[in-house]
Amino acid sequence: MYSMGSFVPTPRTTVRRLAKRAMYDREVVYAILDEAFICHVGFISGESPVVLPTAYGRDGDQLYLHGSAANHMLRIAAAGAELCIAVTLVDGLVMARSAFHHSINYRSVVIFGKGQVITEPADKTEALRCISEHVTPGRWAEVRPPTENELKVTAVIAVPLDEVSAKVRTGGPVDDEEDYRLPVWAGVLPLALCPLATVDDGRVPDGIAVAKSVAGWQRRRSRGEIS
Amino acid sequence: MYSMGSFVPTPRTTVRRLAKRAMYDREVVYAILDEAFICHVGFISGESPVVLPTAYGRDGDQLYLHGSAANHMLRIAAAGAELCIAVTLVDGLVMARSAFHHSINYRSVVIFGKGQVITEPADKTEALRCISEHVTPGRWAEVRPPTENELKVTAVIAVPLDEVSAKVRTGGPVDDEEDYRLPVWAGVLPLALCPLATVDDGRVPDGIAVAKSVAGWQRRRSRGEIS
Repeated sequence: MYSMGSFVPTPRTTVRRLAKRAMYDREVVYAILDEAFICHVGFISGESPVVLPTAYGRDGDQLYLHGSAANHMLRIAAAGAELCIAVTLVDGLVMARSAFHHSINYRSVVIFGKGQVITEPADKTEALRCISEHVTPGRWAEVRPPTENELKVTAVIAVPLDEVSAKVRTGGPVDDEEDYRLPVWAGVLPLALCPLATVDDGRVPDGIAVAKSVAGWQRRRSRGEIS
Repeated sequence: MYSMGSFVPTPRTTVRRLAKRAMYDREVVYAILDEAFICHVGFISGESPVVLPTAYGRDGDQLYLHGSAANHMLRIAAAGAELCIAVTLVDGLVMARSAFHHSINYRSVVIFGKGQVITEPADKTEALRCISEHVTPGRWAEVRPPTENELKVTAVIAVPLDEVSAKVRTGGPVDDEEDYRLPVWAGVLPLALCPLATVDDGRVPDGIAVAKSVAGWQRRRSRGEIS
């Protein structure tokens, strides 16, 4: 496979537990970041850690976060605080023969870094388009773009993908040899985030079908990664 | 509805943005915690925030976390560090007529507190059973219970549900009045974590069917919460 190279592990991104699950390849990191769309942003407020969920987008080695200009987390990020951003995909429940060997198949990315505020309106629009297209590809062209004032009340932060690690567990349970004779079903229950039937908001004009971006929405997921 | 009372907001759990989405009712918090099974634990390591995903269980007003006794996060938690634990359920994508008014329907809980190590083997077993039953109800009785040594190499932490808030967004998009005439489909694309077909591990004895706990696995989700 063509390689995009690896992130260089730092003391913060050197995976401590189950290091064989650690990965620093850009392909692996990008694939996880591009399938998920919610991250959990950690920062320090006073003397307390704080973790909040938010949507994001990725463009190359930049992760974009956005929100109200009054948003506490974005204001702290804008002030140059250290951030830790975790992105987690749950791929399946690993059902072993003993309670002890149960596990979860997952793919996760952890990013350390500082945010940089995007102020220039064209760059801001581009970053918002990136987030929108990340969550729902094709939607941006279907809807009214942001006005000058909407841009003004929105804060956008770019976090460089620099100090990054991924951790991946795949495959079935690994049981103790003597447990394999137990009359217990063991294997993987794969899980996936699935779109259900769309619900229109009751004010859609007659003759307007469900938008293409919505009808075709799905996240990529290769079969090989779940069992 | 019978009320279990509310958590008392503190400076840390007073929701700052979109306060109308904040909830402190125990019923709301418990329902979110009981449907999800992965949390993101934030803590401070050195001068850096760290966020890591892990499974959890809930028993009353205790949240249980577990892992290897060598686990960095659990060792920091065991030392009495402040933790922030976020639990997030993504219920749907809210598709508006303008890029600006797009949103996500979600239910999230944020918990602040310190962990307490569970050392007594019977309590530890009970906490591990709680986590196992939380992730896969019924599985504990189907499998081999932990041995004394397995308990020894496992660390379990209880975090009290005390400083807790929930934040919930439901419903369709709220568009600017003049945008309703645009020829744009708008509404909600509900999302749910779905179990797919089970995959056995190739060493299940003949005649052993997929376990009841696995075949019947699902997370609760009321229709009213997604659109």
